[in-house]
Amino acid sequence: MKANEIGEIGLIRRIGKILQSPYLGDDCAVIDNGNDYLVVTTDMLHRVTDFPREMTGEDIGWMSVAVSLSDVAGMGARPVGVVAAIGIPGDTDIEFIDGIATGMRNCAKCYGTDIIGGDTDQHQELTIVTTAFGRVNKDQVKLRSGAKVGDLLCVTGYLGTTAAGFKVLTGEREASPEDRQILFRSFFRPEPRLGEGMILAQYPGVTAMMDVSDGLGKSVYELSVASKVGFIVYADALPVREEARKVARSRTELLDMAICFGGEFELLFTVNPDEVGNIKGVDFTVIGKVTESGLVLDDRGARTEISCKGYEHLKKKGDTVH
Amino acid sequence: MKANEIGEIGLIRRIGKILQSPYLGDDCAVIDNGNDYLVVTTDMLHRVTDFPREMTGEDIGWMSVAVSLSDVAGMGARPVGVVAAIGIPGDTDIEFIDGIATGMRNCAKCYGTDIIGGDTDQHQELTIVTTAFGRVNKDQVKLRSGAKVGDLLCVTGYLGTTAAGFKVLTGEREASPEDRQILFRSFFRPEPRLGEGMILAQYPGVTAMMDVSDGLGKSVYELSVASKVGFIVYADALPVREEARKVARSRTELLDMAICFGGEFELLFTVNPDEVGNIKGVDFTVIGKVTESGLVLDDRGARTEISCKGYEHLKKKGDTVH
Repeated sequence: MKANEIGEIGLIRRIGKILQSPYLGDDCAVIDNGNDYLVVTTDMLHRVTDFPREMTGEDIGWMSVAVSLSDVAGMGARPVGVVAAIGIPGDTDIEFIDGIATGMRNCAKCYGTDIIGGDTDQHQELTIVTTAFGRVNKDQVKLRSGAKVGDLLCVTGYLGTTAAGFKVLTGEREASPEDRQILFRSFFRPEPRLGEGMILAQYPGVTAMMDVSDGLGKSVYELSVASKVGFIVYADALPVREEARKVARSRTELLDMAICFGGEFELLFTVNPDEVGNIKGVDFTVIGKVTESGLVLDDRGARTEISCKGYEHLKKKGDTVH
Repeated sequence: MKANEIGEIGLIRRIGKILQSPYLGDDCAVIDNGNDYLVVTTDMLHRVTDFPREMTGEDIGWMSVAVSLSDVAGMGARPVGVVAAIGIPGDTDIEFIDGIATGMRNCAKCYGTDIIGGDTDQHQELTIVTTAFGRVNKDQVKLRSGAKVGDLLCVTGYLGTTAAGFKVLTGEREASPEDRQILFRSFFRPEPRLGEGMILAQYPGVTAMMDVSDGLGKSVYELSVASKVGFIVYADALPVREEARKVARSRTELLDMAICFGGEFELLFTVNPDEVGNIKGVDFTVIGKVTESGLVLDDRGARTEISCKGYEHLKKKGDTVH
């Protein structure tokens, strides 16, 4: 059997079994660091899949660091460093590489950390792997496995903005110059929710957390597996920007953008209903709740199964690419 | 200017300046972790440059982890985890990927640690980035910058074995079946010197340390820059296996294999001559000493400059590839 016949999720399960590692399954691996936990995440991005030609070097550098920091945010941790391995085609302009390094530095420093090391290599395709690590108090780390039936499901910020940006970028849809700016910013300069993650980590009533960069649909699926629960999501509650709403031609398309596309670096979390009113300093929306089982989208009373798996590499044959 | 015009060392310096990071320059970045130091290293390997077709999946997995663990060894640290990002061509056999995962697991477990997390992605070229973490007491961490004039220069194990393996593998030279086994093992299953590194870390008289995976020549150059000293290396003192010696057709070729090729995961360190006799539990050879300036090879009285820079990616135009 070939890699593209098994799909990314199948491959990760298979590799995970071989690795015999107890740590796989959350946004970050968690290592006992004495008085606290060290959390670690690694992400591979490359030209063909992740960096449209319209991105500048600075955009690419920023996104490469942001994607890993978002996983650190998902654990409620404080970032303490990022390392980056960069594979560079030999004919790449030095100024473009300067831009990548600048974007990396700016993103790291913006979130109170640094690029502390790295590796460069000649490669036929621009390939960047960032590894970010953070520290978090042992009683504050947020995993995917803590959601309880009756908890509320919440998300920071907005969903569907990046999907709308993609549709405009590829020329599939039009948008005004002002709207384009907002939509592309979400796409090219995603903002990991580190501050929000660290605040949410302080509330014991926040029972599970992860980032939604792979899409809301895949994220609730992951939470449901880890916590052995179900979810109901209310379509009318999904926070969507007006600029993204204008791009969608139908309600179905809009829901697909908000639920299935991914690329937003927001935090998805479950919280005890008795605690939700106490949370201060984080903008979030209650979008659903934790149930016994099943993944259900409630669209004004019409209930359907949330079947999209969000962003998956190594697609199985027959999968449509978003 | 293009990336291949500036070369890897030039590129790293340029990126380092932009990143404004105080941590670049040792085998690992060093982070204050409260009671001890956390050390971190990342390495990119890929099919074209690093994985000859003769390597099995298990060899590839093992090597990918070993290369990062060797950097942890170079700091005198104890490994606490490895994460791996793997870019896989879609038509790769699953069994081959199983082999990679198995090799990774075996290497990590062999050295008392685990693969604690990772990322998989579809990629046109097999690309593996491993990031290894270690911890080390603050008064025991070994940097490149501590070598003092008068210290002895030492190396663990042997040099030139991997170079000999490469020459046999490419068909440039012949070797007996028994010799091939020893030479290829050095090439395909390198053994990072973690135990040796942790022992050496306990001796305050060990003043500087790094691994020699990029070749002895480049490594003494790096030590000389970091410590602001020079080195004299005695050709007759270089530890070379008989199996490697047989592959070389001339003394010049043998010295080139031992000094310039790289690919050995041995430790290079400097030690106060008053302490060298106290070191127990590590097999090493004294190969030279620290001088005021210059990088000199003394071959039975004939002195030449050590000019090879060892293994360098993104070669400048005009460089020969070893």
